[in-house]
Amino acid sequence: MSTIADIAGLLGPRLSTGASVRDQHGRNEAHYPPAPPDAVAFPETADEVAAIVRACAAHGTPLTAFGTGTSLEGQHLPVRGGISLDLSRMDRVLAINTEDLNAVVQPGVTRTRLNADLRGTGLFFPVDPGADASLGGMAATRASGTTAVRYGTMRENVLALQAVMADGSIIRTGSQARKSSAGYDLTHLLVGSEGTLGIITELTVRLHPLPEAVAAATCRFATVEDAVTCVIAVIQSAIPMARIELVDEMMVRGFNLHSGTDLPEKPHLFLEFHGSPTGVGEQAAAFREIAGEFGADGWQDATTTEARSALWAMRHNAHYATGALEPGKRTLATDVCVPISKLAEAVVQAQQDAAAMGLTSAIVGHVGDGNFHCGVRVNPDDAEEMARVMDFSGRLAETALRLGGTVTGEHGVGLGKRKYMAAEHGPALAWMRAVKAAFDPLGILNPGKMLPPEG
Amino acid sequence: MSTIADIAGLLGPRLSTGASVRDQHGRNEAHYPPAPPDAVAFPETADEVAAIVRACAAHGTPLTAFGTGTSLEGQHLPVRGGISLDLSRMDRVLAINTEDLNAVVQPGVTRTRLNADLRGTGLFFPVDPGADASLGGMAATRASGTTAVRYGTMRENVLALQAVMADGSIIRTGSQARKSSAGYDLTHLLVGSEGTLGIITELTVRLHPLPEAVAAATCRFATVEDAVTCVIAVIQSAIPMARIELVDEMMVRGFNLHSGTDLPEKPHLFLEFHGSPTGVGEQAAAFREIAGEFGADGWQDATTTEARSALWAMRHNAHYATGALEPGKRTLATDVCVPISKLAEAVVQAQQDAAAMGLTSAIVGHVGDGNFHCGVRVNPDDAEEMARVMDFSGRLAETALRLGGTVTGEHGVGLGKRKYMAAEHGPALAWMRAVKAAFDPLGILNPGKMLPPEG
Repeated sequence: MSTIADIAGLLGPRLSTGASVRDQHGRNEAHYPPAPPDAVAFPETADEVAAIVRACAAHGTPLTAFGTGTSLEGQHLPVRGGISLDLSRMDRVLAINTEDLNAVVQPGVTRTRLNADLRGTGLFFPVDPGADASLGGMAATRASGTTAVRYGTMRENVLALQAVMADGSIIRTGSQARKSSAGYDLTHLLVGSEGTLGIITELTVRLHPLPEAVAAATCRFATVEDAVTCVIAVIQSAIPMARIELVDEMMVRGFNLHSGTDLPEKPHLFLEFHGSPTGVGEQAAAFREIAGEFGADGWQDATTTEARSALWAMRHNAHYATGALEPGKRTLATDVCVPISKLAEAVVQAQQDAAAMGLTSAIVGHVGDGNFHCGVRVNPDDAEEMARVMDFSGRLAETALRLGGTVTGEHGVGLGKRKYMAAEHGPALAWMRAVKAAFDPLGILNPGKMLPPEG
Repeated sequence: MSTIADIAGLLGPRLSTGASVRDQHGRNEAHYPPAPPDAVAFPETADEVAAIVRACAAHGTPLTAFGTGTSLEGQHLPVRGGISLDLSRMDRVLAINTEDLNAVVQPGVTRTRLNADLRGTGLFFPVDPGADASLGGMAATRASGTTAVRYGTMRENVLALQAVMADGSIIRTGSQARKSSAGYDLTHLLVGSEGTLGIITELTVRLHPLPEAVAAATCRFATVEDAVTCVIAVIQSAIPMARIELVDEMMVRGFNLHSGTDLPEKPHLFLEFHGSPTGVGEQAAAFREIAGEFGADGWQDATTTEARSALWAMRHNAHYATGALEPGKRTLATDVCVPISKLAEAVVQAQQDAAAMGLTSAIVGHVGDGNFHCGVRVNPDDAEEMARVMDFSGRLAETALRLGGTVTGEHGVGLGKRKYMAAEHGPALAWMRAVKAAFDPLGILNPGKMLPPEG
């Protein structure tokens, strides 16, 4: 493959064709079969990325960006072979602009690394998808997580980008200014494009002041409907929730098995409040009053840092806790987002579908956004069970669309959700294809992802 | 013109070629010369818009959308003739979804009309550019205003669109869900595209809970630097400002002349706090403490609804108050946005440039966003003065770019800022052209706007 020779000439030992490196870049944390690239490139500068893109363009070789490999819909899998572009060496925090509340980073910087660098500044980067993903990958998949209800998703927190386009040109989109009306919004076109329109080589992300006070709590409800209706009332009441997470009965069972807790197997809300010390107390009291109207029970404060950390560690381990429900299988982690008024209906439908299909499915949800995840246990080698799980996943997507939502709130499209793009977007899909054709006419950037095959 | 005959066949009397209607649609509130269309179409449905677009496409006739005609960079002026598409008859509020905190509206609904319809729901639509613009026009220009620091701009507040594309197809982008990772972000591509990529025929906008308590205040500083440095400290301290407006010495003079007030001619901040009654008090006290460190003086609370209304009416009348500074001329209203750390430098530079060039320029700014406006008085018939004003405006744009900002924070590009697009976007401009070519290959949608001529 002459692309490999070209890139090896450029990068030397930073172009690897070794089996273990290729295997590592062909793996994923979800249920997709391995898909190793022909070679893995480790660029260190945007100029090197541009040269690699030009080499791929010259030979029509597929190029798939790789951050930390934690995406859940196979976004980083080079399913058509070619080059895996590993951005982990582009891991410098280039600037922390405390007065402007932003940071300029290379795409390989992870979110915990950025927050470590921010210690002592009084600022933090809030977007938290659970995994310690790279910021480039998080931007490329439009990631969000538990704090999006208060601080927004990557859509709201990426101010500017540097990107290498399919012809090898290097562009800058956006600016350090917090807003602009100057021209087409290429920043938001690239955010969420999963490496199919360009390669992100630098990001300016928004930072937020650390809250003066933080408090967390949990409470439980008799039914999912009660929990969700409570959330709707809370959001309408203008309580500025920092986190508000739904944990269904099955997920509670998983937490108990995994963490040795003994929470009652009822729908729970896990909560966090940010503000001034007075404000946080006021928010919690206002929440508790509303929750009481919906029969909330077992209110448990987590006021110390340790108690809070234990609570969110439990929540972040949902993926592994789901594993405890049926050991020896893998977890298909799927994700939909619906209007919050339809959330209870969607969650109950998913619970009933899973039960009717004999599947073990645990639900956690960023309920303030109407976004929830089903972790379904499956043996990928059991074709019949896999078919049932895919059927469940398809029904969940249909439910989300029927209720006016989207087939993915934060995991992205990748390989798994391509088949729903036509149903979700209708005639708009043709204009997404037009964007792709205009930006990547050779189809070298992450082929086989995002857009379904034509016809 | 056979386009006119085609559309007249479709709309009957809702297609007008009368001189007064054409003149009305060729006027603007800024300094641009009149540019009347050949005819004005008043569609009532998206299907009619689609038919009009198809008629224009068939004959290569320019089509320029018109909301309320309040845009400040000539966006609605049909500078190449053709059809003005007046969307004022598409003025229905289609749904108010209180549980989902959103509203579905036609593009001709104005922001005050939507807020009137929201009375009693406990919700409001916060984006407030001053003018009572149509929501379609506000989305098309990516408008913002005094409350963007807290509630975001149209970029953050448009969830979903229906749009008619250049081939007459009708698409839907986004959904009622608060977030999505499903596909390219066509919503944000259309928001801010000034009718050059498609015609917005329906919007879903986010609503926000009315704050329980609102308080406003003003204070003044010895210098612009003091005022701006105070704002930086306030933003870093996590006080969730609802409005924070800079008013420079010259603008204060204009207010005094226009409103009969006698404010000291010093840089002022006009402030608003939203929250719980306790929270609002706490915010104001925290602000005052920080402001004290920067020598703030003359703190004036506006606690009653009347006092608050008077304060913001004065602010909103800045355009007319600027007129009082030098009667008999017009106001060139320009706007830039810079990183907040560079705001004092940019404002002082603008003040010095205006003074050195013998121009009367008043500054108001959405200082929490780094966005400010210069209103410069000019006699458009005085070529020498007009040249000086254009020179001033060019220097302001250069200053913004030199400081890492953008040539327009909220007014948009239209006719006036096209000449800075290459300087601001560099190689990214080619990709904006690629989007335009892919979406409007015939160039019928608002030609002569946004992108500069090639070469």
